[in-house]
Amino acid sequence: MAVLCRPEIAVPENVITVEETLDLARTFHADHPQLPLVLRLISNTGVRKRHLIRPIAETLSHPGFEVRNRIYEEHARARVPEVVRKALANAELRAVDIDLIIYVSCTGFMMPSLTAWLINSMGFRDDTRQLPIAQLGCAAGGAAINRAHDFCTAYDDANALIVACEFCSLCYQPTDSDVGSLLSNGLFGDAVGAAVVRGRGGTGVRLERNGSYLIPDTTDWISYLVKDTGFHFRLDKRVPKTMEPLAPALRALVEDHQWEVDELDFYVIHAGGPRILDDLTKFLGVPPVAFRHSRSTLTDYGNIASAVVLEALRRVFDEGSLTASARGVIAGFGPGITAEMCVGTWVPREVHIHRPIDSPRTSFLEAS
Amino acid sequence: MAVLCRPEIAVPENVITVEETLDLARTFHADHPQLPLVLRLISNTGVRKRHLIRPIAETLSHPGFEVRNRIYEEHARARVPEVVRKALANAELRAVDIDLIIYVSCTGFMMPSLTAWLINSMGFRDDTRQLPIAQLGCAAGGAAINRAHDFCTAYDDANALIVACEFCSLCYQPTDSDVGSLLSNGLFGDAVGAAVVRGRGGTGVRLERNGSYLIPDTTDWISYLVKDTGFHFRLDKRVPKTMEPLAPALRALVEDHQWEVDELDFYVIHAGGPRILDDLTKFLGVPPVAFRHSRSTLTDYGNIASAVVLEALRRVFDEGSLTASARGVIAGFGPGITAEMCVGTWVPREVHIHRPIDSPRTSFLEAS
Repeated sequence: MAVLCRPEIAVPENVITVEETLDLARTFHADHPQLPLVLRLISNTGVRKRHLIRPIAETLSHPGFEVRNRIYEEHARARVPEVVRKALANAELRAVDIDLIIYVSCTGFMMPSLTAWLINSMGFRDDTRQLPIAQLGCAAGGAAINRAHDFCTAYDDANALIVACEFCSLCYQPTDSDVGSLLSNGLFGDAVGAAVVRGRGGTGVRLERNGSYLIPDTTDWISYLVKDTGFHFRLDKRVPKTMEPLAPALRALVEDHQWEVDELDFYVIHAGGPRILDDLTKFLGVPPVAFRHSRSTLTDYGNIASAVVLEALRRVFDEGSLTASARGVIAGFGPGITAEMCVGTWVPREVHIHRPIDSPRTSFLEAS
Repeated sequence: MAVLCRPEIAVPENVITVEETLDLARTFHADHPQLPLVLRLISNTGVRKRHLIRPIAETLSHPGFEVRNRIYEEHARARVPEVVRKALANAELRAVDIDLIIYVSCTGFMMPSLTAWLINSMGFRDDTRQLPIAQLGCAAGGAAINRAHDFCTAYDDANALIVACEFCSLCYQPTDSDVGSLLSNGLFGDAVGAAVVRGRGGTGVRLERNGSYLIPDTTDWISYLVKDTGFHFRLDKRVPKTMEPLAPALRALVEDHQWEVDELDFYVIHAGGPRILDDLTKFLGVPPVAFRHSRSTLTDYGNIASAVVLEALRRVFDEGSLTASARGVIAGFGPGITAEMCVGTWVPREVHIHRPIDSPRTSFLEAS
């Protein structure tokens, strides 16, 4: 059985508070006819601060798509390895134990993907499978977990590494001034996340069932307009209301697993915005506290795209309140509009005995 | 067991011959100090003609990255569905029978991926998984087959649809004049390919083992430079020699399967260029005729990127010479430098009995 181990997250050192965000909006868009709406929307996100790979002044300039992709690559190389090392340590594995790297990122484009560089520079085996995904946006974190689950179901002694590298600030487009863009400027943040799915052993969420759902005919509700200036994020005002059609798909997945969606022990939900979380409490019939980890992620870091589900799950681990067989759900939402969802059971911490070199995965379950 | 069914391929209606390609090189690069080398390299590719989504005059202009992506989307929507319909028919399945769509393409960028539009417009189920891959380049055809194999191994009654949509002519960059770029201008062609991997039933290649290999420290040998003008293909002159390090990986995969690499019944190899095929005959110890399908693909269509392996495999089906249990290999090569390889056994044609609506996959094996 595939176990999703403790994710590791790193956010960059440059911080922008919501007050600074609001000041920037007032300064740059003083004459915008919908400025009051924009300010209210940003305030209502619940985001208190976000972390950026570069200082604010640099973030606000647009040096061209080429330079931005170069910055993306440079920061990815600088920031991803340490997060990967910690995620491997969390899973008590070494780089050579990894069979598949799923790298998800929609905020920079490289070919080859960073996977090739990671394999070369971090000691992964030269037969490690590479699965880079650039086009699932915020849903890619959930998709990565689900494809890792599938892979470890196909090969039950395999291990998959998930990396989510999102530098959303590199998609800031100074010339876009529609309400959706201005809201996005106050919503998204930068982060790197990583986690390992172990085919055997491991502590965390035993992945038991996954599913995908596409809301019909919403293809252009969340999208990139791809221009000479790079990726321009388009956000339709109908997006915040999409939990009504998505909730039944989430409920159906849980019920297929013979569980009840309002009786789970943990909920790790993509915190795209506050409305998503508010509406899900209503449509799933769960109390707001159920989404405390997603909400904390949003408050502390903003919407960090595909890394949100890893970050919220990290908080589940840190809270440390789950006991053996606790049941939960993980769900990422993104363009399509697509939901990538899974359900799983908490596997408590194992204590590893001294590992002989030839059998690094020998362990026994701690009574807990 | 996963069976890769007959691929379907479509090439566009605009044809450019090698003579026209050479004339264009002479016209546009008359003063290029290495023109004779470029002409010789293009002649040596063995490409006789290529097919393009637009007439040559339009192909040669650069309307900007934004317009190119719009053209990509427009032609993808116009050209992909018919190929998908035929691939489904080849597999004797309907759209609703598909559980996963793997869409590979490195020549245009869309978010959401075309998968969302396909699901909405072609009758796929709203719970169909989407796996768009944009960053594996020419290796993505092999990767798509391998990930479809993994998926059908995890869920043995599942079916996966592979789509490879490559409009390489949209990556033509008039301002690039290094030898690698000028050679590429004479090498790549446009095509759409699709094929289904059936978890149960089906005629074609039963997928039995797959593997990936990254040649260490060759990350920048095949790459995109991502600029305001789009994707600029960079080809290092060492690339044609990469079969020496790749051949042992291919041999090892086959030997892990208890087969001998020089005794297989079919070889479906990425026809990146003629040197790949020439060298593999040497390093694998197989006669040139073994790669006839790959060579024909290259001659007739040029290097059609991730669609090559599907096109060469289509020729294996069309030749019709394989009998039950014939053994073969499929291998895609691309940036990384990455090889995505698999081995499988030929499954002869089944005759389907009249299918009741409730059990569309009922069939029995024809004696053959």
